[in-house]
Amino acid sequence: MAAHFALLIDPAASDDACDDFAATFTVLDPAAPALSVSELSTQRGDGIFESIGVVDGHPQEVAAHLERLAHSAALCDLPAPHLGQWRQAIGRAAAACGAGESVIKLILSRGVEHGPAPTAWVTAATAADNSAVRERGIRVVTLDRGIDSGAADRAPWLLLGAKTLSYAVNMAAIREAHRRGADDAVFVSSDGILLEAPTASLILKKDGRFVTPAAGSGILHGTTQISLFEHLAQLGHSTAYETLPVEALMRADAAWLVSSVRLAAPISAVDGVELSADSALTASINDYLLSPRD
Amino acid sequence: MAAHFALLIDPAASDDACDDFAATFTVLDPAAPALSVSELSTQRGDGIFESIGVVDGHPQEVAAHLERLAHSAALCDLPAPHLGQWRQAIGRAAAACGAGESVIKLILSRGVEHGPAPTAWVTAATAADNSAVRERGIRVVTLDRGIDSGAADRAPWLLLGAKTLSYAVNMAAIREAHRRGADDAVFVSSDGILLEAPTASLILKKDGRFVTPAAGSGILHGTTQISLFEHLAQLGHSTAYETLPVEALMRADAAWLVSSVRLAAPISAVDGVELSADSALTASINDYLLSPRD
Repeated sequence: MAAHFALLIDPAASDDACDDFAATFTVLDPAAPALSVSELSTQRGDGIFESIGVVDGHPQEVAAHLERLAHSAALCDLPAPHLGQWRQAIGRAAAACGAGESVIKLILSRGVEHGPAPTAWVTAATAADNSAVRERGIRVVTLDRGIDSGAADRAPWLLLGAKTLSYAVNMAAIREAHRRGADDAVFVSSDGILLEAPTASLILKKDGRFVTPAAGSGILHGTTQISLFEHLAQLGHSTAYETLPVEALMRADAAWLVSSVRLAAPISAVDGVELSADSALTASINDYLLSPRD
Repeated sequence: MAAHFALLIDPAASDDACDDFAATFTVLDPAAPALSVSELSTQRGDGIFESIGVVDGHPQEVAAHLERLAHSAALCDLPAPHLGQWRQAIGRAAAACGAGESVIKLILSRGVEHGPAPTAWVTAATAADNSAVRERGIRVVTLDRGIDSGAADRAPWLLLGAKTLSYAVNMAAIREAHRRGADDAVFVSSDGILLEAPTASLILKKDGRFVTPAAGSGILHGTTQISLFEHLAQLGHSTAYETLPVEALMRADAAWLVSSVRLAAPISAVDGVELSADSALTASINDYLLSPRD
């Protein structure tokens, strides 16, 4: 859905000693011209973002999203975000969300070319209806990410742990999945290790345990995955980060792509081969993910 | 330098049968708000671009740049650009350039989220003064691109031959080069093959021949490199596309990074080791690249 609320925030005018950032906020018409053509976000995908799920006006996992925003900023040599300012901007966006599910996006761009400071804004939009996807599941294809699982450690300039605006490849992978008759993709390293989906984390259930690819191999640490693992551990389940070969997905007892807005989408097929699902477990996971979480 | 001219163009309103596209152009203030926050170029670096060198108001190699724009569009599943419309927009931007060197940028974005059509614009700016760099040369460091040289053929969804707006990694590589006391980077595949610089092509001279990395290995086909190879061949020099191991750069008789605006920058050092330069040859190459070329 198109954004119904947008707030431009001035990160340079912020101050951690401050506790009211209203003077650094400008409400925008989300459909109106707001950014100059010199914006480095548009010219080079040079910036970072977060997408926060909102349920009945409550933004989920704000602290984890802000922590990752700060981590992405550090990896990209962007000024550290003033978290109090962002938290207040998220509050303003959440207040503009009605009942049901919404999404708040945070964007921190390097700013205009040769400009003095970053540009930043927050939007809110009604979320697409994902209820059918959460029940029926999604068909995925595995796609080679080209990068080997050691690249993230070896070459930090590849920004593999940062959530940058440079998502053209992520979008192309989803289009490739659609071309192959699937709904989404799961990236695999060139040495055959499971990574993540273009916009979601991968969780497998095998032998009664829940496992997800280790974050060191060049993937984003998923906020939804972290929250879900905490919940599963509280319920007494065993959870682990592992280096998983691609075959582990085909052999899983069940598998999900989890993300902030679609939440847990059970994987119903991998590369055209059906995968068994656990409907009751999926429903209980999504009940948890739809409950208010901080 | 900041853009001094910007033209929004409506690619959907264009028609190849048309020969006057003025009605599809809107002149913008390049510093004023022009794009909505829903632009996919800003949200996901989802679009393509070209940078065209301009000398005394003459845009260089327009046909080659438009050909690559069309190639990038096809790789990214964007509608084929109407070349007549873009050519006319380039003419308008060139008319706004004064004497000396300028740069015209073409940007074709996927448009606003859930929008009906791409967004496109053209800007013109005075170029930075590159005369000292062309004489004195640049120090480069080699940086692992993480991707092996077979990935482009194997995984077209990595968009390795497309000039997309997702340039966050290219920018991070240049910052890493600066951190190491160098001016620029040369990407090397994970299997040790020379690729390209973040914003330029690599040309080596060895044993009296001019060689450049083969385009199939996941690099952009450089418009300046193509033009220069044609010129060198006309002068009787031997030129070739080759698979070059990283050692070939250290052992070259001379080497350059070539691009549309900086033109030929001789490489004076690789990973801290001095490389010999051929000042007379570099000067003659830049004289050619500064002459009007179509």
